[in-house]
Amino acid sequence: MKIGIIGLGLIGGTIAKSLKNKHYISAYDLSENTLKFAKENDIINEAYNDIENFISDNEVFYICLYPKAIIDFISKYKNLFKKNSIIIEISGVKTYMVQEISKLNLENIEVVFTHPVAGSEKVGVFHSKAEIFKNANYVITPVKNNKKSSLDLVKSLAKEMRFKNISCVTPEVHDSMIAYTSQLTHVLSLSLVNSVYAISTELETNRFIGDSYRDLTRISKINEKLWPDLFITNKQELLKKIELFEIELRKFKDALIMNDVKKLENLMINSTSLRENMDRGNKNDS
Amino acid sequence: MKIGIIGLGLIGGTIAKSLKNKHYISAYDLSENTLKFAKENDIINEAYNDIENFISDNEVFYICLYPKAIIDFISKYKNLFKKNSIIIEISGVKTYMVQEISKLNLENIEVVFTHPVAGSEKVGVFHSKAEIFKNANYVITPVKNNKKSSLDLVKSLAKEMRFKNISCVTPEVHDSMIAYTSQLTHVLSLSLVNSVYAISTELETNRFIGDSYRDLTRISKINEKLWPDLFITNKQELLKKIELFEIELRKFKDALIMNDVKKLENLMINSTSLRENMDRGNKNDS
Repeated sequence: MKIGIIGLGLIGGTIAKSLKNKHYISAYDLSENTLKFAKENDIINEAYNDIENFISDNEVFYICLYPKAIIDFISKYKNLFKKNSIIIEISGVKTYMVQEISKLNLENIEVVFTHPVAGSEKVGVFHSKAEIFKNANYVITPVKNNKKSSLDLVKSLAKEMRFKNISCVTPEVHDSMIAYTSQLTHVLSLSLVNSVYAISTELETNRFIGDSYRDLTRISKINEKLWPDLFITNKQELLKKIELFEIELRKFKDALIMNDVKKLENLMINSTSLRENMDRGNKNDS
Repeated sequence: MKIGIIGLGLIGGTIAKSLKNKHYISAYDLSENTLKFAKENDIINEAYNDIENFISDNEVFYICLYPKAIIDFISKYKNLFKKNSIIIEISGVKTYMVQEISKLNLENIEVVFTHPVAGSEKVGVFHSKAEIFKNANYVITPVKNNKKSSLDLVKSLAKEMRFKNISCVTPEVHDSMIAYTSQLTHVLSLSLVNSVYAISTELETNRFIGDSYRDLTRISKINEKLWPDLFITNKQELLKKIELFEIELRKFKDALIMNDVKKLENLMINSTSLRENMDRGNKNDS
């Protein structure tokens, strides 16, 4: 199948690498360096800097741009797409995307809304690698006008890319869950790192860190061009999750203030058991 | 050199494995299974279940028990130790340990207070491995009665165990920094995991997690027999650090509520830069 990738960054490049052995992969990107690198390293079959030819030569597309850029792109070029074109959208927010795309009154294009729950703190095609998707989660949020055949195609491509759990949920469920598993997690990491200003110099801190601090702060290296949009377009859900976290933190603080060893133990027994179940669930699935 | 290890758990076992090629390692532990396993797997040279013989056969000891058990052990057996015995203490709190040990009025024993900033969410000698210490941080908090020769010995043993940064600071500086890098980090991880109760079932959550959630929650598997003591004996410092973290979290929430993209970007630019410096610092040191 001919597949066109719009935006060849970390995710676009990883999709290309994951599908190229079975499909003919074309890419469109504003950066000539990116296209040159991808062509020279055999990541794609064909590079386009001409948008009209790129669109008319393909019928199935992955659009791998930042959320607002996705809407701008489809809005600007929607009339270039052939009838029955499928655009697979891969951003980290769904309710907002579905709403905005529905305002565009697309006729020739069917958009399938999906979220590969995988990535890296690094950006660009240069860091893409097929391993990123292996055994990761893939969430699809079907909408009314999605054909069964299109959803089946998206699932089958996700399997080829070696995703493990492929789920279908509503955009609202997706946004609620991702606000917790991904967005809150990033907020905690960056707030932990930024606290260092009030505590000590970085240089001194370096001498006291272990693997725990290293692990919890890896994702504080965060793409400031992408994430503010993700947070703001899912603001209400994220605020709710931050508040639920604050309630848990408050429980811990109260137990500590009261020297309540039993309560502290129970909080730890709970978290240990939840995390062990998570490991077990993953193992059983594989 | 003959070295005695009191308590052959994860850390005691890792010390044994890290030093055995150059030293004669004995261990005392209440669990016969542990001693049997360590002897059969060649982790130690000699196993003791008789405390008197163990103490009289050695002059340098690592005491690898939980904080309160360290104090109880030394208090109970202090008269068995030969003159000029050295006990190297390895717990995660220092001000409290120094205070409590000083109350014991030790005559024959010199205690050197240290903290190998390394470990695992797993427990027991069965999970010990020398790699845990490789390139990790080691903090020594010297006290008045420590001889230079004893501190030099401890440093030299730490180097043999392949620790990278070996620092000397006051017990107070240690406790302030560890409250941030280690204790706060664990509190955030366990509170993040425990928040799941208010959000969804674990089963559903599993389908939405990526590496970020996996990384941030690894240490929520936490030993509830050890950590409440570490937290409570360093309570004031930990409470301060939780409050500094809450200030950072508040900054993020305010920016989000106000849709302040510029502010969100700046928080992310800061955290990215701090974390990149940390990586760079580590690389330069190695």
